[in-house]
Amino acid sequence: MKEKGPITGEQIADLLELTRATLRPDLAILTMSGILEARPRVGYYYNGRSGNTLVARAISKLRVKDIKSLPVVARETVSVYDAVVTMFTEDVGTLSVVDGDGYLSGVVSRKDLLKIAISGGDVHKMPVGMVMTRMPNIITVTPDDTVYLAAKRLITHQIDALPVVRTFVQPNGQERLEVVGRLTKTNITRFFVELANDEL
Amino acid sequence: MKEKGPITGEQIADLLELTRATLRPDLAILTMSGILEARPRVGYYYNGRSGNTLVARAISKLRVKDIKSLPVVARETVSVYDAVVTMFTEDVGTLSVVDGDGYLSGVVSRKDLLKIAISGGDVHKMPVGMVMTRMPNIITVTPDDTVYLAAKRLITHQIDALPVVRTFVQPNGQERLEVVGRLTKTNITRFFVELANDEL
Repeated sequence: MKEKGPITGEQIADLLELTRATLRPDLAILTMSGILEARPRVGYYYNGRSGNTLVARAISKLRVKDIKSLPVVARETVSVYDAVVTMFTEDVGTLSVVDGDGYLSGVVSRKDLLKIAISGGDVHKMPVGMVMTRMPNIITVTPDDTVYLAAKRLITHQIDALPVVRTFVQPNGQERLEVVGRLTKTNITRFFVELANDEL
Repeated sequence: MKEKGPITGEQIADLLELTRATLRPDLAILTMSGILEARPRVGYYYNGRSGNTLVARAISKLRVKDIKSLPVVARETVSVYDAVVTMFTEDVGTLSVVDGDGYLSGVVSRKDLLKIAISGGDVHKMPVGMVMTRMPNIITVTPDDTVYLAAKRLITHQIDALPVVRTFVQPNGQERLEVVGRLTKTNITRFFVELANDEL
């Protein structure tokens, strides 16, 4: 230990180091959280992200493939009645409808089927292809799209579910969509609960 | 300005103050965000909340009354057909059903109505009261419940919507529920988009 006397520049450096060292464990956590950024020779600085921005980041880094459900599909030739049965069996509110090659050709919702069922048509004879929303008027997402984009599409287009698709380019250059999942308001709500649980 | 020479204790204090002053604007933002807490004589300390906990806090402070939609109700005496018409007119997936006094007596979903419509019953004669889920088997929330609780109930009970209710205690001591709104997966999804937009 040094004797009493005028304080040296070295001691000041030590003091400043001590100050930094005291703060550092906290700041390390904050940099990990993405609130502060550590820059060599500059030190820590606040990067302009608020708590809400953090929420936005937590949400925006999530991809459709992380929370999507398994696809539930019906051939467009099955009857409205059979489509309803599939819907109840699989406990879903929307079916992806596929053509003979298995590619996406339409989407049919509980609402579409209820409209037909209540209007007194012959639900056993009418094919689901007649009542579905048909390509290209279908809103889809890909597995790598963000959940945020998917949620925006659900709200903007006032629908309950999105087919999750992969694009196949056929030998003739035509693009076809393969259904690899579905992304619903239930997925979003479940993720919301998990966010609030702080279990991510 | 002082002359060159050994550095004094006063100057050290100034230096430390300068160090703190440089850091402080950032830390002020962090304390406002609830990440750091400022304690007199102790300084700033990290309060153990991570970015994810912030997400949880942002979510958990939101109440049902902040994002609920207007109630859409039907009398339990109306026909299944009329209930479906109301559903389409109001563009909702679930109706709250009320008794003659206007209090909640049941809930009916698109799924319930589709089941009846597809099974070939007479939807013009059958009252909605016969097909609805009846009190006390109804899951509800109050305006002051958190959106988190509402979301958990939607997921746990596998339903799309919750009636938002206020309890009335009648002169005879019996409790009745007045429907003051509805809270749906659409509300949650819309809030989720707003969170991600960082517009709260």
